[in-house]
Amino acid sequence: MRIIKKKIGEYAELTGYLHELNDETDNIKEYPAILIFPGGGFRTCSFLESEPIALAYLAEGYQAFTLKYTTVTDKENATIEDPMTDAQKALEWIRDCREEYCIGKEQLALLGFSGGAHLAAATATHGPQRPDVLLLGYPGILHSELRALECPDIIECIDEKTPPTFLFGTRDDKVTPPKHILVFAQCLEQKNVEFEVHIFRKGEHGFSLAKPLTSVGDKNRVNPDVAQWFQLSVRWLKEMLGEFTVYGVNDGRIGKYSIDTRVCELLESPEAKELVLTYLPMLSEELPVFIKDWITPRILNKNQKSLSQEKLEELDQKLLTL
Amino acid sequence: MRIIKKKIGEYAELTGYLHELNDETDNIKEYPAILIFPGGGFRTCSFLESEPIALAYLAEGYQAFTLKYTTVTDKENATIEDPMTDAQKALEWIRDCREEYCIGKEQLALLGFSGGAHLAAATATHGPQRPDVLLLGYPGILHSELRALECPDIIECIDEKTPPTFLFGTRDDKVTPPKHILVFAQCLEQKNVEFEVHIFRKGEHGFSLAKPLTSVGDKNRVNPDVAQWFQLSVRWLKEMLGEFTVYGVNDGRIGKYSIDTRVCELLESPEAKELVLTYLPMLSEELPVFIKDWITPRILNKNQKSLSQEKLEELDQKLLTL
Amino acid sequence: MRIIKKKIGEYAELTGYLHELNDETDNIKEYPAILIFPGGGFRTCSFLESEPIALAYLAEGYQAFTLKYTTVTDKENATIEDPMTDAQKALEWIRDCREEYCIGKEQLALLGFSGGAHLAAATATHGPQRPDVLLLGYPGILHSELRALECPDIIECIDEKTPPTFLFGTRDDKVTPPKHILVFAQCLEQKNVEFEVHIFRKGEHGFSLAKPLTSVGDKNRVNPDVAQWFQLSVRWLKEMLGEFTVYGVNDGRIGKYSIDTRVCELLESPEAKELVLTYLPMLSEELPVFIKDWITPRILNKNQKSLSQEKLEELDQKLLTL
Amino acid sequence: MRIIKKKIGEYAELTGYLHELNDETDNIKEYPAILIFPGGGFRTCSFLESEPIALAYLAEGYQAFTLKYTTVTDKENATIEDPMTDAQKALEWIRDCREEYCIGKEQLALLGFSGGAHLAAATATHGPQRPDVLLLGYPGILHSELRALECPDIIECIDEKTPPTFLFGTRDDKVTPPKHILVFAQCLEQKNVEFEVHIFRKGEHGFSLAKPLTSVGDKNRVNPDVAQWFQLSVRWLKEMLGEFTVYGVNDGRIGKYSIDTRVCELLESPEAKELVLTYLPMLSEELPVFIKDWITPRILNKNQKSLSQEKLEELDQKLLTL
Repeated sequence: MRIIKKKIGEYAELTGYLHELNDETDNIKEYPAILIFPGGGFRTCSFLESEPIALAYLAEGYQAFTLKYTTVTDKENATIEDPMTDAQKALEWIRDCREEYCIGKEQLALLGFSGGAHLAAATATHGPQRPDVLLLGYPGILHSELRALECPDIIECIDEKTPPTFLFGTRDDKVTPPKHILVFAQCLEQKNVEFEVHIFRKGEHGFSLAKPLTSVGDKNRVNPDVAQWFQLSVRWLKEMLGEFTVYGVNDGRIGKYSIDTRVCELLESPEAKELVLTYLPMLSEELPVFIKDWITPRILNKNQKSLSQEKLEELDQKLLTL
Repeated sequence: MRIIKKKIGEYAELTGYLHELNDETDNIKEYPAILIFPGGGFRTCSFLESEPIALAYLAEGYQAFTLKYTTVTDKENATIEDPMTDAQKALEWIRDCREEYCIGKEQLALLGFSGGAHLAAATATHGPQRPDVLLLGYPGILHSELRALECPDIIECIDEKTPPTFLFGTRDDKVTPPKHILVFAQCLEQKNVEFEVHIFRKGEHGFSLAKPLTSVGDKNRVNPDVAQWFQLSVRWLKEMLGEFTVYGVNDGRIGKYSIDTRVCELLESPEAKELVLTYLPMLSEELPVFIKDWITPRILNKNQKSLSQEKLEELDQKLLTL
Repeated sequence: MRIIKKKIGEYAELTGYLHELNDETDNIKEYPAILIFPGGGFRTCSFLESEPIALAYLAEGYQAFTLKYTTVTDKENATIEDPMTDAQKALEWIRDCREEYCIGKEQLALLGFSGGAHLAAATATHGPQRPDVLLLGYPGILHSELRALECPDIIECIDEKTPPTFLFGTRDDKVTPPKHILVFAQCLEQKNVEFEVHIFRKGEHGFSLAKPLTSVGDKNRVNPDVAQWFQLSVRWLKEMLGEFTVYGVNDGRIGKYSIDTRVCELLESPEAKELVLTYLPMLSEELPVFIKDWITPRILNKNQKSLSQEKLEELDQKLLTL
Repeated sequence: MRIIKKKIGEYAELTGYLHELNDETDNIKEYPAILIFPGGGFRTCSFLESEPIALAYLAEGYQAFTLKYTTVTDKENATIEDPMTDAQKALEWIRDCREEYCIGKEQLALLGFSGGAHLAAATATHGPQRPDVLLLGYPGILHSELRALECPDIIECIDEKTPPTFLFGTRDDKVTPPKHILVFAQCLEQKNVEFEVHIFRKGEHGFSLAKPLTSVGDKNRVNPDVAQWFQLSVRWLKEMLGEFTVYGVNDGRIGKYSIDTRVCELLESPEAKELVLTYLPMLSEELPVFIKDWITPRILNKNQKSLSQEKLEELDQKLLTL
């Protein structure tokens, strides 16, 4: 992996935590991406809702970016237009670098927390750059006097083009109580947009991952129940943006035999055996059981390169039609 | 356990799946209870939302009841007053039998599904008998032409006395879409009532436990994600209604030593050792390690009855103050 | 459900916690079964390892039986032959009643705890009646002076016919330390028998479900980590004994369309539409969207009975070949 | 975070994925560390068992290191002494840099996979540098002809100083079948060393995280059951190496009130109120409810710095003794 930094405004900087392609994992040509807006009431950008969150998604196979956007601490007379512009530039820049950073097409998620969720929701409803899916953690959506800056109205702008949204928070959040989530979800339903909602009973505003790592030592930010939001979000993201290729499972190929069938199974079918031995005669040798039991033509060829990619695909096609 | 049947109306019957006290589990004197209203649009009472649900909570330590209430199939000219009356009688009868069935005080939950959730929500808001906590699965709350009977308005009646509520359902439910849940939760928040909400992305109306067992073979009712609602509800119920006594953990006793401390630890402290040997001299004998490592004065006395309950508690008090 | 009692020996009794077939769940014609041998060192049969365990598997869709077998408390001069005989009779009786109690063929699991696991392992290795799969919780396998009775050697009798086995326990069990599990698993491997092993770090002997419900109030028998054994066993049992039928998923039928396809999808394909309307012309009517979106020919026919079972299967065959 | 590279031998290199302290998370002064030895039969060092594993532990709060050690591909006439030396140097170098990289004392775990687990087990038993705890994934322990290099005997060297060990693998692993795990665990038990064992039923050798990300597209390396090993290991590691500080929970301080008590609670007790207002008079002001409900003296002082660290601790001591 590598870490990149990109200044995209006077007070705004993107940090990217990025996987790099490697020869071993040849089923992966692209990764989904997630851009994270930390909270802080537009006064600060919380570290706890930046790097630890990015690392959690990185570990799940995401190209993860955090945005340090403009706050009133950086620029006394800032208006909401400042971070809104930062957000637009961040989305645009990531999309421009899509190929360079091996990011899948239409696989860019945006996740915001608290005030950062306010900014994320505004971005996803006002555009022009919008994420492909949106995640909002204990979001401020409605007007609130606790924020140093106030976005243009979000609720009014929810429409059919608002991306599918995953919302989570807690019932006893005093800073952004659940009504922010409930009103947002209701509007999404009216506009026929997909969503998922989890409002847990108990948990302090700003819980981040709800684990000791992100608790600043405060026991009210440690909660194994609430911590489930992260795995719920990972599953939801996989359903929305897709999963890495598993041959014969999610790649659209259908057939009893293929170049991903174990050699032991191929040798049991006379037709498959004949085909395989024509292309890969070394398989006729008396291979040890522990090899035959797990090796497939694809894996064999990856190691031995006896067939060209074209020949290998030709074999695959023939096996699939058996 | 035992199964009981109780007719509480011409077309209404309660079934109880009930734990019975036994000598071995002397930390349990009472169980929490759950009453289940199956769905069926007031045309039928679904088996899939009755017994399998009751058994799931029974296994978690609940006294579980299902109510077969009056439907238009039983009584052509039924009105909503018929099942509403059944519901009141069911709650009343269970509370009247609280001691007989070892049910904890203020530990009666009500869980309804679909149309049964409509009935449950009406019961919890109209009373006079109301449950201590409420759970609603893919509930119909707002007016709907799909129900054979229509309750009096529920939303208008939500007030501060409405019990804490756990709501779950799916986004793509065509019969009772999430707005039923969202509006209910919003009103609870306005009235300052506790709640928890889980709206999963995908899952067919009527999913019950979302497992093959309750799927009628329909693959859209099998969904491991949605199936999480059950364990989420169990955790929520424990937080709301309490957990079975674990000595020294949730019984309010605080101290370094007690009659629940392992003998090996007690013998290491001179003061505790002296106290213990005064009351239970057999512990001075050379007990085998595997015994000393796990036995406690309480367990020993349970088996050997060498001390009266009073003497045992006296020892406990003295140990707690060391 | 119903509860049955069956005396199978002077001091031995089976209790069955049994599902009953019902019209709604027509995908279920048979249930897997599990027979439970509680522990107690052949001095008693622990309640905590009997009913609570049975109820947990019952809730997962099992026909659950517990065996109260002969102990030295019942019969002072008992030998291991007494409970061994009880075990044989129990397995035989359950198999004899297979059809009466809707138990699937070769779907009988045997689960024992502690001394009961000793008995279960002896049963599974000595026969002649053996379970189809075996589960052993903190088992005593090797010789131990803590048991009132000693089985004939188990390890020597493990052979290729020993059923697949799931083993679980804890590292700091002083009564039946993990060597009992490790030696058993090693012999299974030598004899090429399937198994699964989970030895958790910490947990008191006799933890049962490791939850407050089965803790007798002892905090060392409550352990959420160890409690995972139950769900691990449920998943393993499903892999070994199969899962309830989900149409088009695990019933062996393959095809793009079938009588389990949503009507909305069938009407989108001209060929499927023609076929369906020939058999079920009422589907041509303008059905409301919420109906078309979830109803299938199978569900429709279950409610309306417009087609005979033969005609329905004929339609299915034709749809599957499209 | 940062990524570091350190060459520690002609063919050996350490990569570190490292958290950096930051002001916000002042409860964290040190992180536990994990060193990862990938597999590859001493022919290669698998990427799939290096970086993706490191990132998974990094996200859980570990300073994660991977070691590229010497293989026969690097050095044709390599002996096991080559990677053994690399391993010793790696452990030594990490310990030497303990303070620089904020690694907790005696908090260094070693995790090896397949051949890398062989190397890890040899390191942990032969020393002189040994890890504080050991994790072995589908390890090769016994002699095997599949490895290009053979370690000195591991089993013979297991003794009381061998670190606590977490072992996992699958029953149908043809390359390193479970006997490697079982024999190792048996010796640990004999020597009275702590361990935990998870042998799942099914899963291909080399499954890494058992997720699509680390599957190279092979469906036999994707298995949600087996994937549980990672979270099981995280929980085990926390039990062995400790958890990050949560004030009043795992820091050893005991008392009803402290500088970590919510202001709303402190103001309710006359004694606590008097103390708090003496030290922090601004709390007498009419704070808004949403502030009083979550702010604590520690958090307030973190933001406002009105008290020196000494004064704050003085207040804490006084509150704790109330």
